[in-house]
Amino acid sequence: MKYSKFFMPTLRDVPKDADTVSAKLMLRSGMIRKLAAGLYDWLPLGLRILKKVEGIVREEMNSIDGQEVWLPHVQPKELWEETGRWGVYGKELLRFKDRKNSEFCFAPTAEEVITDLVRRDVRSYRQLPLMVYQFGTKFRDEIRPRFGIMRAREFYMKDGYSFHADEKDAEVYYSKVLEAYSNIFRRCGLNFRPVEAESGAIGGSFSHEFMVMAETGEEEIVTCPSCNYAANLERAECLPVQSIAPQETQLALEEVSTPGTYTVDDVAKLLKEPKEKFIKTLFFKADEIPVVALVRGDTDLNLPKLARVLGAKTIFKMSEEEYARFAGCDVGFAGPQGLKEKARQKDPKFKLVADHLIKSVVNGISGANLKDSHSKNLNGPRDFEPDLFADLRNAIRGDFCPRCGAKGQKSVLNFSRGIEVGHTFKLGTKYSASMKAEYLDEAGKSRPFVMGCYGIGVSRVVAAAIEQNHDDNGMMWRKELAPFQVVLIPVKLDDAKTLEWSKSIYNDLTRAGIEVLLDDREERAGVKFKDADLIGIPVKITLGEKGLSQNQAEIKTRNSAQAEFIPLDSIVSEIQSKLKQYNQ
Amino acid sequence: MKYSKFFMPTLRDVPKDADTVSAKLMLRSGMIRKLAAGLYDWLPLGLRILKKVEGIVREEMNSIDGQEVWLPHVQPKELWEETGRWGVYGKELLRFKDRKNSEFCFAPTAEEVITDLVRRDVRSYRQLPLMVYQFGTKFRDEIRPRFGIMRAREFYMKDGYSFHADEKDAEVYYSKVLEAYSNIFRRCGLNFRPVEAESGAIGGSFSHEFMVMAETGEEEIVTCPSCNYAANLERAECLPVQSIAPQETQLALEEVSTPGTYTVDDVAKLLKEPKEKFIKTLFFKADEIPVVALVRGDTDLNLPKLARVLGAKTIFKMSEEEYARFAGCDVGFAGPQGLKEKARQKDPKFKLVADHLIKSVVNGISGANLKDSHSKNLNGPRDFEPDLFADLRNAIRGDFCPRCGAKGQKSVLNFSRGIEVGHTFKLGTKYSASMKAEYLDEAGKSRPFVMGCYGIGVSRVVAAAIEQNHDDNGMMWRKELAPFQVVLIPVKLDDAKTLEWSKSIYNDLTRAGIEVLLDDREERAGVKFKDADLIGIPVKITLGEKGLSQNQAEIKTRNSAQAEFIPLDSIVSEIQSKLKQYNQ
Repeated sequence: MKYSKFFMPTLRDVPKDADTVSAKLMLRSGMIRKLAAGLYDWLPLGLRILKKVEGIVREEMNSIDGQEVWLPHVQPKELWEETGRWGVYGKELLRFKDRKNSEFCFAPTAEEVITDLVRRDVRSYRQLPLMVYQFGTKFRDEIRPRFGIMRAREFYMKDGYSFHADEKDAEVYYSKVLEAYSNIFRRCGLNFRPVEAESGAIGGSFSHEFMVMAETGEEEIVTCPSCNYAANLERAECLPVQSIAPQETQLALEEVSTPGTYTVDDVAKLLKEPKEKFIKTLFFKADEIPVVALVRGDTDLNLPKLARVLGAKTIFKMSEEEYARFAGCDVGFAGPQGLKEKARQKDPKFKLVADHLIKSVVNGISGANLKDSHSKNLNGPRDFEPDLFADLRNAIRGDFCPRCGAKGQKSVLNFSRGIEVGHTFKLGTKYSASMKAEYLDEAGKSRPFVMGCYGIGVSRVVAAAIEQNHDDNGMMWRKELAPFQVVLIPVKLDDAKTLEWSKSIYNDLTRAGIEVLLDDREERAGVKFKDADLIGIPVKITLGEKGLSQNQAEIKTRNSAQAEFIPLDSIVSEIQSKLKQYNQ
Repeated sequence: MKYSKFFMPTLRDVPKDADTVSAKLMLRSGMIRKLAAGLYDWLPLGLRILKKVEGIVREEMNSIDGQEVWLPHVQPKELWEETGRWGVYGKELLRFKDRKNSEFCFAPTAEEVITDLVRRDVRSYRQLPLMVYQFGTKFRDEIRPRFGIMRAREFYMKDGYSFHADEKDAEVYYSKVLEAYSNIFRRCGLNFRPVEAESGAIGGSFSHEFMVMAETGEEEIVTCPSCNYAANLERAECLPVQSIAPQETQLALEEVSTPGTYTVDDVAKLLKEPKEKFIKTLFFKADEIPVVALVRGDTDLNLPKLARVLGAKTIFKMSEEEYARFAGCDVGFAGPQGLKEKARQKDPKFKLVADHLIKSVVNGISGANLKDSHSKNLNGPRDFEPDLFADLRNAIRGDFCPRCGAKGQKSVLNFSRGIEVGHTFKLGTKYSASMKAEYLDEAGKSRPFVMGCYGIGVSRVVAAAIEQNHDDNGMMWRKELAPFQVVLIPVKLDDAKTLEWSKSIYNDLTRAGIEVLLDDREERAGVKFKDADLIGIPVKITLGEKGLSQNQAEIKTRNSAQAEFIPLDSIVSEIQSKLKQYNQ
């Protein structure tokens, strides 16, 4: 490819609203341009790299018998109602009506459509297992699109769905997928790890996220240094054993004035008490049942855990009006003392639940169920008695590994950050049961398919690779993802020898199956070097006067500071060996 | 690929709602499945073929320096307002609001987005010409989706956009695109022809449609047997010379009662008069100007022609209320006599225009401007006098070629039908002017880009290829589009020699770069033969007992009735030569 014919508008200045390294570099190098919030044009340079990732994903999916399909992006409401997801999915699901007033969505995922296809066309255990996958545009109406294409609204995704005769086969296949995913991210040169994760709106019995380790990652991950336990913060389990109450004398309940102050942070500052002494009193509606959950002031409530403990399908924060009705005071000033008894009078189904760590709070502080007031020296069960204690919070620094802990060993969890690039779900029969997708087993009995589903954020992989592989001068592409493996820079464009060699080297490398960008622009060599580094091409060949006079070309790889001079007549084999070693 | 691992659910029965050969065969062979009206799942077999077409299109686009990009499907209203198309596009444009209540559309085409990209990143004539293209899903909310994927609502399209310094360069490039398009459709094995076409909602100065000739095609095409004139019905020009009034005595105006009868067909039947005697009186609003157009009863008004003659940006049928106000009678009973004078009293801007053929009507029939009545013996200019005569109708059988006609030669046009698979537009500065997309020319002067745009309905090409290449047994794929080039059928799956040879032939062919479908299903040979014919694979190899005993395989191509026996040890070279000759 000639640079002069390649539409790659590089920028010298970093665009103002680029908020991560990858967004900055993708915009500067002309890989992408922003169209609107969370919407990006992919220019030729970016698309070349995206297609390389797509190629790797396709190969690995085919290697585990995946079969590529292409499903409509526009999907009818009726199918989504069969699984109840039309109601469950929030505002991220883009919904609209067609000209005949029928309702549709722009699909963020395709479980319903694929289950519908399979229930119509797969009838026998002999046709199983079956795995189909597709590449396509997905749209999620993010409330705050950011980080360039990393959290864009429109993005490029591979989604795959597998169908099995039984749980066992589904689990065997699930581990094959984990392996294929590991191959993909390894081939993309990523430092990653699979972690246990919540299933969210997709559902199912268990799931893993593939995290690319990066400080700029949006996801917090906990990992155990002693065993292989790894989970995202949402999923990480917390041990109850840490929550033994310390020995301290219980003091008498006391009311203090805290005018206009209600967050834990502010009240802790006002009263000069540590956040560990506080009891957060949080109000929810879980499937129409009013619930108050108590967590310690230095921890955050984990909503999926709360929903699971309650066996609730839906869970929402209580409205301010309802809060006031149950607490008898304004939002922010509720406390657990006497709350259960009072609330049960309004609704006998009311539940009070507490995180294990609440047991560790002695002489605690909470709202006084009275505006502008807090209570001190709260102690359970003297002042409040939850219906149950459970793991309801996110992990915090200092927590022990739940796996090692279960064996009596104490190993403090590490906290790090990651970018989610893949997500696998063991779905079980969640979709097949509700959509009556069944096959006949060997005995002729009708059974629901056991399913799995597997996503990769293909466009996000591109950004994650940049986050992990760059320096001050620009991107550093691994050869497998590089838009070109070689950039060829003839310094003097008006010199016959330069032109001749540049043409022959270009042709020889191209014939050898190497992708070459020939920088034939009328620009200073310095500009060309800067752009080559910015784009991050693995090998740079410079044809300068001095080298050519000795029949040599200068070669430099993107990841080394050293340049070498190589005889022109052995350049193809030299480049091949350089590329072979690159990123090994 | 092993058939047993390939998700290709063939059907014995033709689905009820399949309305064309291609829809029937695509459904029966398991290429596609219907999800909802105009929405289809593409299964592995279909996708393989679609990808072959995509590959051919990509190669030809790259060969004319096209650069692949990937643009958002979801596009902001603001851009579409810059060109005024947000208002002009009808209900086919799927519009919606995001969670922040901003308006967007699901793009059926990308002129605005690409012009926006180029105006930001291309500043100099040195960067021109530039052609970018993309593949992607398009959504058009068809009022009546039909013909399987041929007129689907969601479909797969290649759209390309070129930018030029001047008209001349744009025209030179336009002809390169016509050539590349011809290469594409030739390589896809299609009998096609480019025809002159209307530009419609895309606009611009001229345009061509690429028509695949097929009786099931939705488009009517006229072609001249003497010169190379070809146009679709909408675009075909009609000569004024045909409209000389015949010699006939003008009779006195007369009123006849036609209770409840108002269509030309019905009134012609009632009065026992030929349709050629009728004058259709049609009411429009053209950019807020009331217009009545007169066309002869046996012809259809051509709306784009009317709009062009009037220089109108928008043109709509008049509402029933307005019709009644101007005509002074119910819809269906208006006639031209006295109409202009009456209408001008309501609106002095009122216009009466007539097609050339109206001049040929003597003692014509039209509505009497009175309910349930018609007038006979209407004659212009005695009873009505249009503001102008122009070409306002669609071509009809018997019309002469406008090109030959202009040279005084009489050559009667042929009528045939076609499937539109591609459309090219010379846009001029329609988009660049309204969006202020400009570059600096050599003299440093700011000029708007001159643009072209070029679409191919990639998924529709697949259906068109089937319409043209099939027989009673199924599809007949050209080798370039075939999902597999060879199907290998071992007859006895429990025979060691059969299995051994089937494995070695499969491996040898695969190594030679030939795509083989190995039919390893436990089915009768007859079923396998039927399916192979249905899918339309070019070469079928059968490993039967009799042949194997003589170390021979049976080979049959899809397009011949004759089978041959070939020695097993020369099978690869034999197949290669068979494929080489196939479709030549």
